[in-house]
Amino acid sequence: GAPLVVIAGPCVIEDYDTTLQAAEFLKTVTDRLGIPFIFKASYDKANRSSVHSFRGPGPDLGLDILRRVKERLHVPVLSDVHTESQIGPAAQVLDIIQTPAFLCRQTDFITAVAATGKIINIKKGQFLAPWDITQVVEKARTAGNENILITERGAMFGYNNLVVDFRAIPIMQQQTGKPVIFDATHSVQLPGGQGTCSGGQREFVPCLARAAVAAGADGIFLEVHRNPDKALCDGPNSLPLEQVEPLLTALVAIRQAATEQAGHA
Amino acid sequence: GAPLVVIAGPCVIEDYDTTLQAAEFLKTVTDRLGIPFIFKASYDKANRSSVHSFRGPGPDLGLDILRRVKERLHVPVLSDVHTESQIGPAAQVLDIIQTPAFLCRQTDFITAVAATGKIINIKKGQFLAPWDITQVVEKARTAGNENILITERGAMFGYNNLVVDFRAIPIMQQQTGKPVIFDATHSVQLPGGQGTCSGGQREFVPCLARAAVAAGADGIFLEVHRNPDKALCDGPNSLPLEQVEPLLTALVAIRQAATEQAGHA
Amino acid sequence: GAPLVVIAGPCVIEDYDTTLQAAEFLKTVTDRLGIPFIFKASYDKANRSSVHSFRGPGPDLGLDILRRVKERLHVPVLSDVHTESQIGPAAQVLDIIQTPAFLCRQTDFITAVAATGKIINIKKGQFLAPWDITQVVEKARTAGNENILITERGAMFGYNNLVVDFRAIPIMQQQTGKPVIFDATHSVQLPGGQGTCSGGQREFVPCLARAAVAAGADGIFLEVHRNPDKALCDGPNSLPLEQVEPLLTALVAIRQAATEQAGHA
Amino acid sequence: GAPLVVIAGPCVIEDYDTTLQAAEFLKTVTDRLGIPFIFKASYDKANRSSVHSFRGPGPDLGLDILRRVKERLHVPVLSDVHTESQIGPAAQVLDIIQTPAFLCRQTDFITAVAATGKIINIKKGQFLAPWDITQVVEKARTAGNENILITERGAMFGYNNLVVDFRAIPIMQQQTGKPVIFDATHSVQLPGGQGTCSGGQREFVPCLARAAVAAGADGIFLEVHRNPDKALCDGPNSLPLEQVEPLLTALVAIRQAATEQAGHA
Repeated sequence: GAPLVVIAGPCVIEDYDTTLQAAEFLKTVTDRLGIPFIFKASYDKANRSSVHSFRGPGPDLGLDILRRVKERLHVPVLSDVHTESQIGPAAQVLDIIQTPAFLCRQTDFITAVAATGKIINIKKGQFLAPWDITQVVEKARTAGNENILITERGAMFGYNNLVVDFRAIPIMQQQTGKPVIFDATHSVQLPGGQGTCSGGQREFVPCLARAAVAAGADGIFLEVHRNPDKALCDGPNSLPLEQVEPLLTALVAIRQAATEQAGHA
Repeated sequence: GAPLVVIAGPCVIEDYDTTLQAAEFLKTVTDRLGIPFIFKASYDKANRSSVHSFRGPGPDLGLDILRRVKERLHVPVLSDVHTESQIGPAAQVLDIIQTPAFLCRQTDFITAVAATGKIINIKKGQFLAPWDITQVVEKARTAGNENILITERGAMFGYNNLVVDFRAIPIMQQQTGKPVIFDATHSVQLPGGQGTCSGGQREFVPCLARAAVAAGADGIFLEVHRNPDKALCDGPNSLPLEQVEPLLTALVAIRQAATEQAGHA
Repeated sequence: GAPLVVIAGPCVIEDYDTTLQAAEFLKTVTDRLGIPFIFKASYDKANRSSVHSFRGPGPDLGLDILRRVKERLHVPVLSDVHTESQIGPAAQVLDIIQTPAFLCRQTDFITAVAATGKIINIKKGQFLAPWDITQVVEKARTAGNENILITERGAMFGYNNLVVDFRAIPIMQQQTGKPVIFDATHSVQLPGGQGTCSGGQREFVPCLARAAVAAGADGIFLEVHRNPDKALCDGPNSLPLEQVEPLLTALVAIRQAATEQAGHA
Repeated sequence: GAPLVVIAGPCVIEDYDTTLQAAEFLKTVTDRLGIPFIFKASYDKANRSSVHSFRGPGPDLGLDILRRVKERLHVPVLSDVHTESQIGPAAQVLDIIQTPAFLCRQTDFITAVAATGKIINIKKGQFLAPWDITQVVEKARTAGNENILITERGAMFGYNNLVVDFRAIPIMQQQTGKPVIFDATHSVQLPGGQGTCSGGQREFVPCLARAAVAAGADGIFLEVHRNPDKALCDGPNSLPLEQVEPLLTALVAIRQAATEQAGHA
């Protein structure tokens, strides 16, 4: 089967140097393991819990940093947009444009992103059933774009908690025919769970990432940080850099085992 | 205590005549019962399940119809906006601007609506805990606007179902000091429950509306239709016109009883 | 319509004197309001979170106390049983035998309680959908007993939390034809929420009780205590005695208003 | 690390011959793969949705069949009990006594099973948070028994659906120090989802079993049937026999990969 894809990077761009360092580290590890790698970083966190949270460098500086990382390391880059006006500039730089989970039902927004012709990575809303994503994919396809990824990032489970229903992976693959990525870091968020920001349980990232690959996910989305406790965004659910290589090594082996079995089922 | 407020109207503007007729009917009934009334209708359903669903007349025609209804009947009017570019024109006509539940976490959008100085009716996301709304209200307040309503419309409960947690009404009232409206029609939606559109259980509208007023809601939001089975939008959860007056009569009596008891508690 | 029924008493029998006092207090209040009253107290809390929790006086002493209260005050009495061996002695004293929510799927147990011919009050499991209770009622009916009450006490909502879905009240009434009681105190439990015992939110008891009656409940189940903070069981969700009369007064008025409207719907 | 354990067999004993055949088949496969195997079959389905469902041969005949299978094949056997009176006879035959999920909060029942000194397999209730199981394990330990297994089988997710939260596996392992088994067949039940019986989604059994082993489960519990569509119980969620060996082969490889990574984390 196809190799496992990894989309990884810091939650938010803090500055050029640390962004480049993270990208270099991840490129080195994924090259060594033979894993296709896409670098991910956000530049505008437009939907933080609190109005006082750090939002990132904004589109102009953020896209410039991503462009420089891309040219320097020759890695494809992914980031997310939040309004229709952000789409055009993003399409000049990004290889994959990601749409936020909360916005997955905004028809005009999804079709406008798809209309760029870029690969679109649709994050499934925390409020959608797996089969509901079919209608969202259909919206993107009406814009003439078939290069669609779907990202699973958990479903609301009571208040301030998410649960990952791993049945969603085969369901969405079968109903849409598109690859399904598992977002291992946002799936361990505790939304709003710290009052003015979301908490997280980074200790479960490896456990859930392994489970997702075993369940058949086509790729893994990981937010990483050199020092998660000092991250300006989503530190509580970011994976420390030194845990990346052992985790990816396991994921490659698990994918091999899972794929062989799926061939018999 | 303050009288119960009613926000009501058709889900979507179908044309001027039926919109005016619905508004006239509702004004007559609420006048007779002494209930403050705000007329509600949407003109752009921007987040329907399917790209093929009816979206309404759009902002230009929609706002024109609402302006004419407002001038003819002297009723305040409410509608919802979906992008920042829709806010300015809406503020020229509407008395209350409503923000959609899916968009309650978009910081720039909430503050831009609040910055109009109009009353803002924030629908609580299906993915928020009651206490999470406090941060959303805070975003609106940073724009210098204290005229804020919060609307409860249910929380995700498994797939394709919503449940109303009536504890949310006193929690949100106490944490924000703002009035809480209960959206009796969207709370009975079965999101995505009919494949390409959302289903609904209109038979539970009176039951949940009565419960909300008994629980202390400051107002009720109702979508109504002369013939729900022929409605172009949200028919499955719209209340037939002829059920409006008996329901509102009961709600006024229930509010009286609930308010007296709350004085003792 | 039929008057609202009230089932009330302390969570657990602590001793004869306090049990009698609670029953006298409740009888006086309900007589004054013209409300049919059933006295409730448990004598064996067989499913507490922790093995170290207070369980009550046990069946022998507990049933003796209930028998004395019943003879002294001429009130019907209700308590719950947990094993088949407890059923026979309970049927000698109790007017209504209640089956615990966790045990609602135990076929032999439900049919054995029903076979006593006593009124059976079936608490709906926290894990059942409203329509699932129909099969439980059917099990009781196969034992030849049609005197069945159903008690709603909330459904699991994420971890350590319950939510009351008020749609359940009309659904269960219509599907079974039996009266539905709303357990206002256990519905505000936070199961397991304090580590070794369940927490509770007694401040929401009046709010949810009012909502339930407005939604059409045939009766209310309330656990009360003279001093909830010192109760040996379920203090966090027990209503203080002094709040009983204002609450019941409101419930009677709300039922009147809700019943009139239901006649029009 | 320790090898993966497999607990498997038919949902219910239909007769001696098919029970023996299933056990022989499973023993052969697990021997070939070097997997420790425990044979499982129930003889009294005491909590079926409907009073009209097939319940099995009952304790006398059921235990006799299990005794004969055990002696013939030299495999340890597991079954479940539902009342205190069933415990004694079961302890004469069974190597592991399983307690049903619905009964996990019945203090006397859990301690009575533990008091037999047999290994006790506690199924976690669909209504428990992962950390709530700690109190249940403590109840068993007060009976002097440390030979405790915990089985995860999903948590209620809205109505008539279960979701498996794979974070529960490491949480329960760490909080109790006991092995955690994943019940791959009951986790795909749709409780009550077919009106008078529970539905199931057997197509997800391999997916979730692989995910559980990747997440760190110590063992897998599987219900199997030669012809699931003709099974007298739980056919909709039973795995066909021919899928057992490919699945177990994958699970062994996944466990190897997951265990190596866990050593680095």
